[in-house]
Amino acid sequence: MSFRHLIDFGDLTRGEWEEIYNRCQDIMDHTKDYMDVCKGMIQGNLFFEPSTRTKFSFQTAMLRLGGSVFGFDDPKSSSTAKGESLKDTIKMVSAYADVIVMRNPKEGAAKAASLYSEVPVINAGDGGHMHPTQTLADLTTVQRFRGAIDGVSIGICGDLKNGRTVHSLIKALAKFENVRFYLIAPRELAIPDYVRAFMQEQHLWFAEVTGLEPVIPRLDVLYMTRIQRERFIDPLAYERNKGIYVLTKRKLERAKKDMMVLHPLPRVDEITLDVDDDPRAMYFEQARCGMYARMALLMDLARQGHRKTEPVEIGTNPLCENPNCITQAERYLPPLVKKNGGSLCCAYCDSQLTD
Amino acid sequence: MSFRHLIDFGDLTRGEWEEIYNRCQDIMDHTKDYMDVCKGMIQGNLFFEPSTRTKFSFQTAMLRLGGSVFGFDDPKSSSTAKGESLKDTIKMVSAYADVIVMRNPKEGAAKAASLYSEVPVINAGDGGHMHPTQTLADLTTVQRFRGAIDGVSIGICGDLKNGRTVHSLIKALAKFENVRFYLIAPRELAIPDYVRAFMQEQHLWFAEVTGLEPVIPRLDVLYMTRIQRERFIDPLAYERNKGIYVLTKRKLERAKKDMMVLHPLPRVDEITLDVDDDPRAMYFEQARCGMYARMALLMDLARQGHRKTEPVEIGTNPLCENPNCITQAERYLPPLVKKNGGSLCCAYCDSQLTD
Amino acid sequence: MSFRHLIDFGDLTRGEWEEIYNRCQDIMDHTKDYMDVCKGMIQGNLFFEPSTRTKFSFQTAMLRLGGSVFGFDDPKSSSTAKGESLKDTIKMVSAYADVIVMRNPKEGAAKAASLYSEVPVINAGDGGHMHPTQTLADLTTVQRFRGAIDGVSIGICGDLKNGRTVHSLIKALAKFENVRFYLIAPRELAIPDYVRAFMQEQHLWFAEVTGLEPVIPRLDVLYMTRIQRERFIDPLAYERNKGIYVLTKRKLERAKKDMMVLHPLPRVDEITLDVDDDPRAMYFEQARCGMYARMALLMDLARQGHRKTEPVEIGTNPLCENPNCITQAERYLPPLVKKNGGSLCCAYCDSQLTD
Repeated sequence: MSFRHLIDFGDLTRGEWEEIYNRCQDIMDHTKDYMDVCKGMIQGNLFFEPSTRTKFSFQTAMLRLGGSVFGFDDPKSSSTAKGESLKDTIKMVSAYADVIVMRNPKEGAAKAASLYSEVPVINAGDGGHMHPTQTLADLTTVQRFRGAIDGVSIGICGDLKNGRTVHSLIKALAKFENVRFYLIAPRELAIPDYVRAFMQEQHLWFAEVTGLEPVIPRLDVLYMTRIQRERFIDPLAYERNKGIYVLTKRKLERAKKDMMVLHPLPRVDEITLDVDDDPRAMYFEQARCGMYARMALLMDLARQGHRKTEPVEIGTNPLCENPNCITQAERYLPPLVKKNGGSLCCAYCDSQLTD
Repeated sequence: MSFRHLIDFGDLTRGEWEEIYNRCQDIMDHTKDYMDVCKGMIQGNLFFEPSTRTKFSFQTAMLRLGGSVFGFDDPKSSSTAKGESLKDTIKMVSAYADVIVMRNPKEGAAKAASLYSEVPVINAGDGGHMHPTQTLADLTTVQRFRGAIDGVSIGICGDLKNGRTVHSLIKALAKFENVRFYLIAPRELAIPDYVRAFMQEQHLWFAEVTGLEPVIPRLDVLYMTRIQRERFIDPLAYERNKGIYVLTKRKLERAKKDMMVLHPLPRVDEITLDVDDDPRAMYFEQARCGMYARMALLMDLARQGHRKTEPVEIGTNPLCENPNCITQAERYLPPLVKKNGGSLCCAYCDSQLTD
Repeated sequence: MSFRHLIDFGDLTRGEWEEIYNRCQDIMDHTKDYMDVCKGMIQGNLFFEPSTRTKFSFQTAMLRLGGSVFGFDDPKSSSTAKGESLKDTIKMVSAYADVIVMRNPKEGAAKAASLYSEVPVINAGDGGHMHPTQTLADLTTVQRFRGAIDGVSIGICGDLKNGRTVHSLIKALAKFENVRFYLIAPRELAIPDYVRAFMQEQHLWFAEVTGLEPVIPRLDVLYMTRIQRERFIDPLAYERNKGIYVLTKRKLERAKKDMMVLHPLPRVDEITLDVDDDPRAMYFEQARCGMYARMALLMDLARQGHRKTEPVEIGTNPLCENPNCITQAERYLPPLVKKNGGSLCCAYCDSQLTD
């Protein structure tokens, strides 16, 4: 593959996605053949924030390839690393590891790490910014069980305002043909303006609706997400809305026989337990697909070997005003800018720069 | 073997025990031959409660079979899993793992997990209920170093009221012939009524005594356990009793030359340090036997593969009134009942049901 | 090799060091050949104190040899082990492991562990006492990149009073020929009297200076360490001194073109970031050398197999008055004495005994 780090799923071309998917499919069908593919390779897991699911998925992916894993995995361990810059931590870990998997509460942290790492870096979540391997898991599940992503009618339901998985999924689906989006959310949790602008710019077909039941019969995929009570400004609005977005066995009666229910997990109560035994409930299968997709990714990246990095400029003042941007915390980072559409953005966290 | 999960040692037939033991013996004698037996297999360790010894034993057992291990191992990690039901955690982990090892503070949690897991579940302790692999370690040590369990005279000394290892051991020994039990405990820490009833029902030979020294010459095995000061209602009774149950080198003088001293560990001060160098002190050897016994168990269970589970009823109100029963915490569990002797019991925690 | 445990680098002969180094060099040059050398071997990591760097280095060293790793790694986990003596913890872990790596806040803890362990023990830091594998990493880096240690002119800069790495490094370098030491420190953080006495006794060439810049042109190796503000009695002295001991790109201009900058890491601000891209900055390379050196060590120790330990005397009162000595915490340890130079010392923590 032509890429060295996976920071943002949007950086992949459709061809690269297909290459990963084809390999993933072969791994699912002939898992035993891949048992020694990463033998002798070591994955360094830097979880500056707690994570169970994503961490387990990456760990078992590497173990199933015959590689091994080390790292830290809770806030206290990372606070022992405190006082040390992200740069030094990455330099140190890239002396020991063949690939680095990092989750960090700061937006843009994965991009920052990639500047200093002598081995490939995979973003396992950088604050509210990106979580590209969740998108990889989502697309893999659809492709595997529906046969194609082109032409899919997908309902995305829940908190569309705050969910990074949702934004990432929409951006990724934009690479495919004839996708129809049903965006199902209460008005106060609708998709942010910049996502709407992106969809219009890309000429994507989408409909924003507030009710799940009217659109359910049209969907090939229903992607459920969690609504947190505290996201509502008006508590009464929460009380009025909460039942609407709970998927039950009864609501499923009107769905297509081969519709697929997905959820990034963990669920709280947005899918009732009686749905689990329905063959359309694919969310646990989706977790398994995520492991195989990560295997396909790691197989390539972990074997790329060490490469010295190029020296970069030493920054002094961050360009970006996003208080959660990694450049606010690690002031030595070089001031990098990129263009998203027509506007200048921070190359770490993608926030628009004011000038 | 005919079983898929190990929830309760009592579920094993004597034939199944012998099958495990014979394999265990072969592993002890030819460890290197087993180095790749679980290659490519992954054990998921879910320790909802801290544990050092049991966790290490399971980890190293799997590693010595060429498999690998992931999981969480302290209360904080499990609280990150909080908000998620046990069912969902098990579904998720069984997507990644080939076998699940679980310790959980709730009684019956292992049984509950087995309903939803697509891979075998091993109970590594469910509250005060069961700890079957400790019993496996105990029996393995006796069989290995005495040659047979039938006909053994065993003294069980210490807190016989509260110790789950003790109750489990007594139930397991009931499967063998001509076992003689010397139950050595202060009156206030004697075995519970239901255990005494069980022993009478099974026509087991047993004697309840308060002193260790008078019976020590008759024993083939002395199983020491810890007495916690706080278990005594009357602090004076503790002061009167404490020395009686401390095994010293001097007390060992009157024991048989080939008596075996066992202890589930950790010890506090119930065995003095000068006993450690006596060849009869087998408690550290017992830890090693536990690892080999777990290897024998894992070899079978981890290789059974994934199996879809059957849908189960969705519960609403727990039948069981035991406040530590898993059904009190996870209300969706199906209401399952079993018969122990003549009475109806909760199929999770074995508490007797009132009607 | 003739040694079973690595407690103190000073215990190694020069021949043993060379044997380790030659193997290390071969591992660096032909890493893949060593991929299965410890297959089936298990390393038990007992970190009674948090550590990121040392722990990662040992973990990845074992993993790269094809072995595996278990253990605990934070103070809470070790507090769950609380109530259990170090002896019992070591007995238990040596039933499961092939080699033990231990960090412990008490001085002499590694020596104590070696008395009871049935497998080799490696000291990964025992309080302020010893950290022999850091010294191993340091020497390996110098030997590898300079070609020889004999004849080196080394500047050691920073807090020379409190740094255990520094004392250990000086003792180790005393085994080589014609080493010239420039000891660069503020007066209040100069080397302790006993180190100065040791250097005189050994007829080592050394100069104590307070400024870095005047001596920098003479150095082949500059070993930087961290100065902690709180070490200064007089805060004004800190303010006066702090800039002097910061290595900058500008100060490097006067250094030899092939001088080597080392640092045990983590750094705080004693080396500015603009030094990192200078080819003389070898501190991240030093971390990698540490991993390879540990591989060379583990290869030998992990494969020595289990050996029953000899019974030792049961102590009652510690001989040593050092409040951080392990004998103060674990009272059963045998009272062991050794001679350092002419004086009687505690065989655990090396403190001089008063009589």
